[in-house]
Amino acid sequence: MEKIAVLGAGSWGTALSIVLADNGHEVRLWSYNQDQVKRMNETRINETYLPNIELPEQITAYSDLQVSTEGLDTIVLAVPTKAIREVVRKLKGVLTKKVTIVHVAKGIEPETLKRISEMIEEEMPESLLHAIVVLSGPSHAEEVSLRHPTTVVVTSKNMKEAERIQDLFMNPNFRVYTNPDIVGVEIGGALKNIIALAAGISDGLGYGDNAKAALITRGLAEIARLGTKLGANPLTFSGLAGIGDLIVTCTSVHSRNWRTGNMLGKGEKLEDILQKLGQAVEGVRTTKAARQMAEKYKVKMPITMILYEVLFEDLNPKVAVDELMTRMKTSEMDDLVNILTE
Amino acid sequence: MEKIAVLGAGSWGTALSIVLADNGHEVRLWSYNQDQVKRMNETRINETYLPNIELPEQITAYSDLQVSTEGLDTIVLAVPTKAIREVVRKLKGVLTKKVTIVHVAKGIEPETLKRISEMIEEEMPESLLHAIVVLSGPSHAEEVSLRHPTTVVVTSKNMKEAERIQDLFMNPNFRVYTNPDIVGVEIGGALKNIIALAAGISDGLGYGDNAKAALITRGLAEIARLGTKLGANPLTFSGLAGIGDLIVTCTSVHSRNWRTGNMLGKGEKLEDILQKLGQAVEGVRTTKAARQMAEKYKVKMPITMILYEVLFEDLNPKVAVDELMTRMKTSEMDDLVNILTE
Repeated sequence: MEKIAVLGAGSWGTALSIVLADNGHEVRLWSYNQDQVKRMNETRINETYLPNIELPEQITAYSDLQVSTEGLDTIVLAVPTKAIREVVRKLKGVLTKKVTIVHVAKGIEPETLKRISEMIEEEMPESLLHAIVVLSGPSHAEEVSLRHPTTVVVTSKNMKEAERIQDLFMNPNFRVYTNPDIVGVEIGGALKNIIALAAGISDGLGYGDNAKAALITRGLAEIARLGTKLGANPLTFSGLAGIGDLIVTCTSVHSRNWRTGNMLGKGEKLEDILQKLGQAVEGVRTTKAARQMAEKYKVKMPITMILYEVLFEDLNPKVAVDELMTRMKTSEMDDLVNILTE
Repeated sequence: MEKIAVLGAGSWGTALSIVLADNGHEVRLWSYNQDQVKRMNETRINETYLPNIELPEQITAYSDLQVSTEGLDTIVLAVPTKAIREVVRKLKGVLTKKVTIVHVAKGIEPETLKRISEMIEEEMPESLLHAIVVLSGPSHAEEVSLRHPTTVVVTSKNMKEAERIQDLFMNPNFRVYTNPDIVGVEIGGALKNIIALAAGISDGLGYGDNAKAALITRGLAEIARLGTKLGANPLTFSGLAGIGDLIVTCTSVHSRNWRTGNMLGKGEKLEDILQKLGQAVEGVRTTKAARQMAEKYKVKMPITMILYEVLFEDLNPKVAVDELMTRMKTSEMDDLVNILTE
């Protein structure tokens, strides 16, 4: 059994801590919020992010980054994309030996257009970094904490280390598969949140399952077009980190991105929604980044482009979805072949 | 404007009649059930299959096959797979000139392993058959009748005729795209019902969205493996008749196949469920056919194989889903590469 630090006590960091604890590991769950740490250790519950789930006794919460990571080989990074650089810099300041960082966030950095593993590589010196492993896939935290069956993929430039991480997390309810395509896994995880926003808008407008299925189908094509341009294996988008994660995010009420879209479709304003939800809605920032990537790499991404206008330029959501539904080419293959050939 | 016969007054035949009527065509909606025909013409509602939707005045119901098809060029065949041969034989007996048959059912015939277009070709002499066009995609009848946005594909060996059918159905709410891959479109439409049964079982067991997303992802791989072996273009399974239709069937409460699976997962018996639903549940027969195809063409179809045992050999649904969730290979790519290479 290993000692593992999980940085970030949101719903996903907490759920992954539970998986590791179920497997017999000792988990140090770090949060910058001292009050949250104190309450978790006292009540054995993460009230804000996973209410009603008892934390196994192998989990201890910490607010001191140095203490929580001291002497460990494996550090799970479960903070939102926008906090990645800041937390990695802090981590760099307290580490005394090489670690493997398992990142579980799903986003792309606007302006730099870096994937999360690239951001970590930039911030963490080689002398302290053994490997970066990405864990992604269709996995709502609430269901994982309830031990409902879940499948995820791990990927890394160092697949031997990915297999070690696979073993740490694997159990009968939480199945972990390997996939060597780090670009595809990170792009699929990040971009599905954009499509979830669009699917939520369609649902918020009352458009039904037929419309949503069409959006998801076209969304997958859009993600695959950009991903393959960036060097991903197109097959990854047919797998758990592609269509699997896309489906769960677009069709589950657990999804914050879908819920944000849904409220937009019902006429609420973005700022009000974000304030109401309290947690990060990754798709909003990712839309900014993906739009920049579409322009930089000259890839057609109609859903991304029009969603950007809804989020940041006040385009009416109904006008946006109606336009998406009517401007597809009349031959489906013309839309699809681009996935593999452009 | 054209006169068009729609054979079969179930929910889908009726919804498609409404689309055609909305486009200004005169629709002759045929049903073998004289009582249903009489009531539809009197009440202007199809009470059994689409209650609460008023039938446009361009729709007239008929119980006489000869009268309803006399002199027409286009006949929409909207009967369940198991009734296709019988209805086509009757049609052959009354036709006096060549027609185009648009079939909109989703199934495979057990034993012969024929697709529906192949069954029609066998039954209808060339002298009476101008073309067969297939219409498929993510399209719950209830939503179509409410004019919610919907997208479908049409395909045919005669793509010029497919384009004529595209024009007949196309309107702002009902978008029709062409795809020349008739094998892929028919296989995708038929086999998604098998995965919907499995997804329903998972939901009925209370397993949640993560598990369902994993099943759908693996289900798509399974469909694509068989389809490409039969000569389909793998890209079709990334389109509306593939992943699009699969999503809508697996995640919508409108789906009879999902509902059947859901009741199975809750412990009900198949015979009781089928009696309760009243309408055809295509996935049950298709599972029989697909299992035979998997064996004949030596294609790995784990979901199909185990679902067959649940449906026809009394395997416990929980045992089945648990086995599916745990026996995937540990490398995701090993599962996925087969789609394009086997």
